[in-house]
Amino acid sequence: MPSVSGLENAVAAETNLSHVDGLAGELIIAGYPLEELAPNATYEQSLYLLWHGQLPDAQQLKDFSDQIKSLQQLPDVAMYVLEQAAAKSLPTMDALRMAVSTLSVTDPAPEDNSLESNRARAIQLVAKAPVIVGNYWRMKNGQAALEPKEELSQAGQFLYLIHGEVPDPEFVRALDTYWSTIIDHGLNASTFTARVITSTESDMFSAITGAIGALKGPLHGGAPGPALDMVFEIGKPENAEAYIRNMFDNGERLMGFGHRVYKVRDPRADVLAQASERLFDKAGDRSLYELALAVEKTALRLLEEYKPGRNLQTNVEFYTALVLHGIGLKSEIFSSVFAVGRIGGWAAHVLEQMENNRLIRPKSEYVGPTGRTWGAT
Amino acid sequence: MPSVSGLENAVAAETNLSHVDGLAGELIIAGYPLEELAPNATYEQSLYLLWHGQLPDAQQLKDFSDQIKSLQQLPDVAMYVLEQAAAKSLPTMDALRMAVSTLSVTDPAPEDNSLESNRARAIQLVAKAPVIVGNYWRMKNGQAALEPKEELSQAGQFLYLIHGEVPDPEFVRALDTYWSTIIDHGLNASTFTARVITSTESDMFSAITGAIGALKGPLHGGAPGPALDMVFEIGKPENAEAYIRNMFDNGERLMGFGHRVYKVRDPRADVLAQASERLFDKAGDRSLYELALAVEKTALRLLEEYKPGRNLQTNVEFYTALVLHGIGLKSEIFSSVFAVGRIGGWAAHVLEQMENNRLIRPKSEYVGPTGRTWGAT
Repeated sequence: MPSVSGLENAVAAETNLSHVDGLAGELIIAGYPLEELAPNATYEQSLYLLWHGQLPDAQQLKDFSDQIKSLQQLPDVAMYVLEQAAAKSLPTMDALRMAVSTLSVTDPAPEDNSLESNRARAIQLVAKAPVIVGNYWRMKNGQAALEPKEELSQAGQFLYLIHGEVPDPEFVRALDTYWSTIIDHGLNASTFTARVITSTESDMFSAITGAIGALKGPLHGGAPGPALDMVFEIGKPENAEAYIRNMFDNGERLMGFGHRVYKVRDPRADVLAQASERLFDKAGDRSLYELALAVEKTALRLLEEYKPGRNLQTNVEFYTALVLHGIGLKSEIFSSVFAVGRIGGWAAHVLEQMENNRLIRPKSEYVGPTGRTWGAT
Repeated sequence: MPSVSGLENAVAAETNLSHVDGLAGELIIAGYPLEELAPNATYEQSLYLLWHGQLPDAQQLKDFSDQIKSLQQLPDVAMYVLEQAAAKSLPTMDALRMAVSTLSVTDPAPEDNSLESNRARAIQLVAKAPVIVGNYWRMKNGQAALEPKEELSQAGQFLYLIHGEVPDPEFVRALDTYWSTIIDHGLNASTFTARVITSTESDMFSAITGAIGALKGPLHGGAPGPALDMVFEIGKPENAEAYIRNMFDNGERLMGFGHRVYKVRDPRADVLAQASERLFDKAGDRSLYELALAVEKTALRLLEEYKPGRNLQTNVEFYTALVLHGIGLKSEIFSSVFAVGRIGGWAAHVLEQMENNRLIRPKSEYVGPTGRTWGAT
């Protein structure tokens, strides 16, 4: 039977960008094992690596960062749709999709679909995305939008807008690690969306707008919020066992564990666990980190007991929640923080697809009626 | 070698909506062969058929049409982005993508992703799309936007906005046939985009916004404009042979012929050829229709001579151009007229995907470097 398919076994692209080895639990970003790259690179470095195939030298990094910084101002049309969205308290992912889509209005050559024009669009997107989400968060919470501070890095800028003050360098380091961790991850549904749109020879803004729409879905953008809520509700390490047993007994799903691709521990979980340990260490209070570790340990033991052989492991969401909470972000905005970082990866895939394109058009299997005639109705 | 793939042989969905048999040259829309449905149905009837699995009776059709008509007013935020886009003469597809994305702002329950809410969004989209494109066309051409006339059908409304007067019923009939012809067509790239976005459990507006972005690409939205330009440039039937031979000798691509799926004549070409014959007959001047027929006949003969065995046949674009030109539309807007009609099919696929969902996530094949280390750079 040609059943409904998630295309699990289909190969839809060759890529130089990232390699997800779900059985080995390895993630490679443009040649670097994740654990080499993410603790060390700024987001700008990771972005340059993805877009150019190698890390920048000092001058290249400065030029690249300066170019991004010069493009952070939002056009009026984007600000207007953000105001309208904020007045209705729309989810941040909707606001981001709407604002990104309007960037065509200030495109200097909207009908030019050359690789060069689309590279310029990619830089626009990366520069503006943190400002869109940061200022939308302010507006939605009744605060005035702020002018971006041109001296700040991408991560610094985003945290500045959210918190209204220049952030602690440790917060910036943690967000650089988070964004470098999630910047790209094979052909996930949003990246695939961007490539399908691109495959018709459409433009960068159309592709990224579509990808944001895909990432909005809870099966993709995920559940770091609920994973964190669980940790807070458990409250103390000694409560973990009873709480989680109770969840299993009630047939509830444990958030933050299990992944469609990874059959061993998600390598991103390790990198973010270390980043959160560093963050909470520096802040001088390890208690939430220790609690999360205890919850994770108990959860893994009980998953093996209740779902033996399923081999469900900690996924990226569990420690994402801890890192993002540690830098002062609310769970309501987690998906959008993910999107801001992932835009760099989407853009890299769009450019890669443009360089070696074939229209992506699978088949459907028709299971409906046939042979109806107009007169017989 | 796992080469770059267009997923040609992958089955990504089961569907009750349409069946494309490329070898037999058949298209079935919810049980009806295209040639039964498209010459007879209004767009509203075809839409109801796709969304409900059967044609409406008279009362159902009235209720459905009335509901659509009551939702044609555009919200201020959509009008604002259209004005901004018009000021920059943006392509209509970009304006449509931007305006559709803003519809979340007036959504009565933006965080409710139930099937019922998404059905309501589908009706909003269908009702507003012709008004968005029709009024954007006016604004882009320096004319004031018009209030939709509530007594008009979808096709009538669109032509009213474009031309500024209540249209000839033959024009409305031709547009109903065109939209019923292109309302759905298996898993083309834009429909597939809508289903991938939906598969993450995202919402209708996100999915349709993404699909519009995909349809914008010339490999999908196609080339009815250039096909028509060629007919005009040929000018007289007796010029066709020399003109087309010259194109082949210069290595130029003949627009309006060949299709990735259809290996015989595209059934949509037949239906639209008949619609254009009727249209030009009623208008009392068959000359353009006769010219197009002569160009088609010559083109098919020379395609067989220059590209023997390739079996390149007339596709939907060739007669699309003739029908849309016949009802007074400029080729610049053809892709958007296609999009307005296809929105009904996209929405049907989104709802179908929601009813039986699985995350769509194919694989990529990594062909980049490995084993890089941070310190070594």
